[in-house]
Amino acid sequence: MTPLHSDLEAETGLAGRWFDHLRNHSKSRLGVTRASYGAGEQMAHDLMQGVGQMLGLEKRIDAAGNLYLTLPGRDRGLPAIMTGSHLDSVPEGGNYDGAAGVVAGMAMLARWCRAGRQPQRDVTVMGVRAEELSWFPAPYIGSRAAFGLLEPEALDNCVRPDTGRTLAEHMAEAGFAPERIRARERQLDPARIACFLELHIEQGTVLAEMGLPVGIVTGIRGNLRYRDCHIIGRYGHAGAEPRQSRQDAVLAGVEFVSRLERLWVEHEGAGKDLVATVGRFHTDAAVHTMTKIAGELWFSMDIRSEDNAVLLAVDRELRAIAAEISARRRVVIDLGSYTNALPGPIDHGHRRRLERLARDLGIPSLVMASGAGHDSAVFGNLGIPTAMIFVRNEHGSHNPDEALELADFAQGLRLLVAAVEEIDGG
Amino acid sequence: MTPLHSDLEAETGLAGRWFDHLRNHSKSRLGVTRASYGAGEQMAHDLMQGVGQMLGLEKRIDAAGNLYLTLPGRDRGLPAIMTGSHLDSVPEGGNYDGAAGVVAGMAMLARWCRAGRQPQRDVTVMGVRAEELSWFPAPYIGSRAAFGLLEPEALDNCVRPDTGRTLAEHMAEAGFAPERIRARERQLDPARIACFLELHIEQGTVLAEMGLPVGIVTGIRGNLRYRDCHIIGRYGHAGAEPRQSRQDAVLAGVEFVSRLERLWVEHEGAGKDLVATVGRFHTDAAVHTMTKIAGELWFSMDIRSEDNAVLLAVDRELRAIAAEISARRRVVIDLGSYTNALPGPIDHGHRRRLERLARDLGIPSLVMASGAGHDSAVFGNLGIPTAMIFVRNEHGSHNPDEALELADFAQGLRLLVAAVEEIDGG
Repeated sequence: MTPLHSDLEAETGLAGRWFDHLRNHSKSRLGVTRASYGAGEQMAHDLMQGVGQMLGLEKRIDAAGNLYLTLPGRDRGLPAIMTGSHLDSVPEGGNYDGAAGVVAGMAMLARWCRAGRQPQRDVTVMGVRAEELSWFPAPYIGSRAAFGLLEPEALDNCVRPDTGRTLAEHMAEAGFAPERIRARERQLDPARIACFLELHIEQGTVLAEMGLPVGIVTGIRGNLRYRDCHIIGRYGHAGAEPRQSRQDAVLAGVEFVSRLERLWVEHEGAGKDLVATVGRFHTDAAVHTMTKIAGELWFSMDIRSEDNAVLLAVDRELRAIAAEISARRRVVIDLGSYTNALPGPIDHGHRRRLERLARDLGIPSLVMASGAGHDSAVFGNLGIPTAMIFVRNEHGSHNPDEALELADFAQGLRLLVAAVEEIDGG
Repeated sequence: MTPLHSDLEAETGLAGRWFDHLRNHSKSRLGVTRASYGAGEQMAHDLMQGVGQMLGLEKRIDAAGNLYLTLPGRDRGLPAIMTGSHLDSVPEGGNYDGAAGVVAGMAMLARWCRAGRQPQRDVTVMGVRAEELSWFPAPYIGSRAAFGLLEPEALDNCVRPDTGRTLAEHMAEAGFAPERIRARERQLDPARIACFLELHIEQGTVLAEMGLPVGIVTGIRGNLRYRDCHIIGRYGHAGAEPRQSRQDAVLAGVEFVSRLERLWVEHEGAGKDLVATVGRFHTDAAVHTMTKIAGELWFSMDIRSEDNAVLLAVDRELRAIAAEISARRRVVIDLGSYTNALPGPIDHGHRRRLERLARDLGIPSLVMASGAGHDSAVFGNLGIPTAMIFVRNEHGSHNPDEALELADFAQGLRLLVAAVEEIDGG
């Protein structure tokens, strides 16, 4: 039997048309906009349902509005192979973040159908609702709701900025059943899922810079986020105060951040996965001036790692550094509150399989961490063997210039199809 | 003959009443306000003229409105001993910055008069116009105008923010002769000045922290000022970009400022006078966010030293550091334009005299640099032997909480009187 992955030209063409349809029906001022539980997201679900109907797939929509399109296996008692991603986008975003994974799943099922083959086990493509944080500020709403994991408060506390209405209201209005989500009713049983493979465009530009079409993800970074770090020193005269008596908030902040960078380099040197970003760092625009020692400083930290133990170690180290600098420089460094999102574990076996298949199929690829969060993190944290395939994206995601070459998508799709074939056959 | 400095109680009392008068007639919302060439400054000049008249002093007002009150010496051919300071204040400032030096000079002349003695040479108290930069943004307007050193453009380009009128207009309106200042006509001949001794409150709080009433100034720090340093890197995804490919403006700025601090410590360790202040340091409030690598950063630097060679060395070192960091981190560190105000040299002999007299008279004192600029810098840079006496000030200057204890003022006055007596007699 010819392997399915060796002939995907027709399905790549289909995928290109589906991408065009998605873009044409969700164009907004600068890019595309597909709001969670909004018209754009629904349009994308409608397209996938239409494709499913054409292919004769089984369809299910859960209480949260997640869509499942299944090619039934010969042994329906076996746990299913699942793939897919989300179908919403950020406001004025690009056409591919999320959608590429659902399109790839549907193209794969189209290939099975064209071959007239039936898999050993069910193969299901999931169209996940509400992944982007721009619309409702709770992570992974669709995939967590599917597993009964969405905290009920999120239904009432999350309000879509463009409509002023709550998540529960939007869910109900779109025809779904927020009361069942509120009751934490499970829509999906982890025990019935053999694995979850998600294809997604890379959100950064590492693949583009390295000239490689495909990435194989080692782990989905969790994060430590300190939104409001604050240093309190004392304002003073720039010319008249000697160094020893200053309580300079800028110099304290500069030392703190340079120590953070040193920590980062050390952890990296020890082979740990880590990235750190101080995106905001500022004196007080209302009072700062060239001739005044800065008495206050504010900054944020976003620290990510595939390994939560590394994050917790960094947190401890940062607190010790803050205390040491505070005492020596006679300032107060207050790191404020932080949130810790758990990393999403990637299954070692599936990752190795993807690496091997890429090598065997001659698909140039890079083994890399996922810096951004993905629905896969929810599956992985439930113990479901999970893996991710990245596809090169020229300009980073979450912006109108997001760019996916169909040739690169075809390479990612080939790897996905090969992996599913092998998992199903093995 | 009893030395004049041994009995200054009556004159200290007079000084206290003059300070009260000044405060009562220039009170504003939070502190006192005596605008350059404004009503508050004129009120102070009027008070000093009244005191001069009462004491029978010679009065002269120059083309820039500077006031000279002279106790004539026995030999009027000898160069004069001069003292004094400025009579304007910052908006909502304190009562003593500037005024203390004029009040001390007048109290000293009052003491000579009470003793019925005539000095060997003229002793002149100068009430300087327009020293504070808040009103017209050109340094030392009154004292530079007195020496024909004010650049003519300043007359038309400096506009008082509260009135919208130029320096020339304000000078003319107050009854003075801006056209003579524009012609750089000299109002004072450096060759006719034996020395200039300025008493001033300390602008910082070093004396207050050390519990000492009087400071003896070693030099008036000049400065290097970089108003608009700018770092251009590249914005990026906080989670997805690896360390090596980031062009993080915050990390570049943090390293630059930490290297500046290290330079500072090194120069200090080598016995050089130096202070450095990064008063503004900020990412872009319009676009910065926790999850985005900062692509731009702005900051200011104010670097001061008594020794201009140190400032010029620091400038060279900073440029080398900026170039090195820019290349390594692939950012652009643009220090922008800078201004270099020359330090004001202090006469070694007069400084030693003040140290010796303070010791002999039991006046606890500290030898220290002046971080802020003073009219003395203009006299010193003209080669006129210049010295400064600082008086303790509890809360720093340029604010309504400026505080001068009359007992501390009395110690400074005693030192001034003793020095002038000795210079005149020697």
